[in-house]
Amino acid sequence: MGLAAPTKEKAASDGREFRDAVTALRDLVGEDLDRVGGAIIDSMGSSTPLIPEVAGHLIQSGGKRLRPMLTLAAARLCGYEGEAHVKLAAAVELIHGATLLHDDVVDASALRRGARTANIIWGNKESVLVGDFIFARAFELMVGARNLEVLQILSSASGVIAEGEVLQLATQKNLEATFEMYLAVVESKTAALFSAATHSGAVISEASDPVAEALKNYGRNLGIAYQLIDDALDYAGYEASLGKSIGDDFREGKMTLPVVYAIARATPDEAAFWKRTIADGRQGPEDFARAREIVSRNGALADTHLCARRYADRALEDLTHAPDNAFSRALAALAETSLTRGF
Amino acid sequence: MGLAAPTKEKAASDGREFRDAVTALRDLVGEDLDRVGGAIIDSMGSSTPLIPEVAGHLIQSGGKRLRPMLTLAAARLCGYEGEAHVKLAAAVELIHGATLLHDDVVDASALRRGARTANIIWGNKESVLVGDFIFARAFELMVGARNLEVLQILSSASGVIAEGEVLQLATQKNLEATFEMYLAVVESKTAALFSAATHSGAVISEASDPVAEALKNYGRNLGIAYQLIDDALDYAGYEASLGKSIGDDFREGKMTLPVVYAIARATPDEAAFWKRTIADGRQGPEDFARAREIVSRNGALADTHLCARRYADRALEDLTHAPDNAFSRALAALAETSLTRGF
Repeated sequence: MGLAAPTKEKAASDGREFRDAVTALRDLVGEDLDRVGGAIIDSMGSSTPLIPEVAGHLIQSGGKRLRPMLTLAAARLCGYEGEAHVKLAAAVELIHGATLLHDDVVDASALRRGARTANIIWGNKESVLVGDFIFARAFELMVGARNLEVLQILSSASGVIAEGEVLQLATQKNLEATFEMYLAVVESKTAALFSAATHSGAVISEASDPVAEALKNYGRNLGIAYQLIDDALDYAGYEASLGKSIGDDFREGKMTLPVVYAIARATPDEAAFWKRTIADGRQGPEDFARAREIVSRNGALADTHLCARRYADRALEDLTHAPDNAFSRALAALAETSLTRGF
Repeated sequence: MGLAAPTKEKAASDGREFRDAVTALRDLVGEDLDRVGGAIIDSMGSSTPLIPEVAGHLIQSGGKRLRPMLTLAAARLCGYEGEAHVKLAAAVELIHGATLLHDDVVDASALRRGARTANIIWGNKESVLVGDFIFARAFELMVGARNLEVLQILSSASGVIAEGEVLQLATQKNLEATFEMYLAVVESKTAALFSAATHSGAVISEASDPVAEALKNYGRNLGIAYQLIDDALDYAGYEASLGKSIGDDFREGKMTLPVVYAIARATPDEAAFWKRTIADGRQGPEDFARAREIVSRNGALADTHLCARRYADRALEDLTHAPDNAFSRALAALAETSLTRGF
C-alpha cells in the first residue's frame, strides 16, 4: 500500500500534516476569518432565545471552518480587495451548519465534534426549525454580497446538497449501490459546497473564466477526496481523536465506498454478513468490529484511500491553472495532506 | 355578535364569499398562475425520484395558491408587464410548501388539505430533506428574477418565518402566553410571507414607495386576519369542509388566540381544565369537545373573530393607497370576505 494508500494506522493518526495545512491556511486568512465569525454571530441574533442558543452551540462546537476558509482563500488568491467575500464565506459556513443540524436529525446522531448534538440537547423539532432559520440567514448574507452570479452558484449548490442527502437516504441499505451511485451522493452532499465555496470566491473577485473554472474544479475534487477519507475514517478512525462517533455509517446502513468495495469482493460468508447487517439492519454488538476487520483485510479501505488520492491529485492539477501565490500554495497543501486526515 | 363577529356556524360554513373572492382573483391572474404552476413543476425536477414524488404530492394536494396569486395580483396592480413576477410567485409558493413539509414533521400532523401528509406517507427524514430541497429551489427561482431588492425581501421573510415557528414552539403549553406573544408568532410565521408576497410583486414592478408600502402592509394585515381565522377554525370548524384535522392546535398545546382569550376569562374550574389539557398535556377523548364548548360560550372565539376583523379592515384601508383597478378590487374582496373563510 505504502504511499499510494496510507495504512489504517496512518489514516487514523492525528493527521498532523493535514492539521498543519489547515493551520497554515487559517494563519493566512485569519483576519478575514475573524470577521466571518463576527458576521455569523451577528446573523444569528434573534429575540427568540432558542435560536442563538442552538446556533451558538453549533458555532462554539467549532469545526475546522474549512469551507469559509476556502472562500476567503479563493478570493484572495484572485487578488480580491473588497468586503463581500466575508459575507459569502459566512453564508457558506451557515449553509453547512444548517445541513449539519438537519443531518443529525435525519441520522439520529448523538455526537458531533466531540459534543452532544443539538437534536439530543434540544430535540428534533428545534433542530429542524433552527436549521431553517440558519439556512434563511445564509441567503440573506449572500444577498448582501450583491452579486447575482454568486447568488446563482450558492443557491444552486444548496439545492444540490439537499438532493444528495435525499439520494443518500434512497441508497441506504441497498447492497446493489454502485461506485457511480456513491460518487453521485458525495458529489452532491459534500463536493457541491466545497466547489461553490471556492468558485464563489473566484467569481466575486472577477477572476477570468479559466481561473474561476480551475477553482470550481479544485473545490469539487478536494471535496470528494475529503468525503472519501471521512467515509474511510468511519471504519478506520478512533472516536476520541475524531470527536465524533465512529461506526455511524455502518449502523445506519449507509452505502459508503468501503462497503461498496467490500461487497464487490465478499466471500459468501461475508456477503451474508453484509446482507444481515446492512440490508436487513440486524446488528449485534460485535458486528462493527467484524466490519472493520473485513474492510481492512480485503483492501476495501486501502482502495477507498487510493480513490481519494486520485481526487486529491486532480485538485492539485486544477491549481496549476490558477495564479501561483501564498494562497494557492496553501490550498495545494490542503489537497496534498488531505489523505492524512484523522480529524 | 352579528356582523362584528360571525357566529360559529357562519365561520364554519363553506365560506362561499371567501371562496368566490379567491375564484375571482384566480380568474384575473389565471394565465400567470398557470405559468407559476409550470415553473414549480420544472423546478422540482430531479434525477432522484423521491423528490418529484414528495413535491408532486404537495403540489397536487392543491391548496388555494393564495400566496402566489397575491404576488401576481400585486405586480399586475402596479402595471407590471415583465416576466419575473411568475418566478417570484413560484418562489413564494415553494417557500410556503417547504414550510408545510417541515411544519407537518414538527407537529406530527397526519392530514393536510384532505390528504395524508408527506411525513406519514414517506417519513420524517424524507420530509425534512425534500423540504430543504424545495427551499433551495425557491431561492434559485428568486435569483432568476434578478432583482436584489426583491431577493432581500424574500430571503428576510424566510428567516422571519423560521423564527416564528421557533417562537411558536417555545410558547407551546405556556399558559402565560399573552396576546402580544401570540401576535408575534402570527406576524412571523404567516403574515411575513403574505407581506413579502405582495411587497415583492410591487417592488419588481418598480411601484412608487407609498404604493409598495401600502401593498406590503396589506399583505401583512391580510395574513394576520387569515391566521386568526385559521386558529378559530381549529376550534370552530368541521373537519370534512376544512380538509384538515381540527383540534390539532389543542392537542399540541398551541397557545392560539382562542385559548389565550379563554384562559384570561376562565372560571377556576376552566383554569384547571386548561392547565391539565394544555400545560400538562393530559387529554382525554372528551376534552376537545369541552374546549370547543368553552371557547364558544365565553366569547373567546367571537373575540378572535373581532380581532381578525380589525386586521381585515386595516388591509382594506391599506388598499386605498394603491391604484384603483380590477386587481386592487379583487384584493379588497379577499380582505372583505376573509372572515367568512371556512376552508
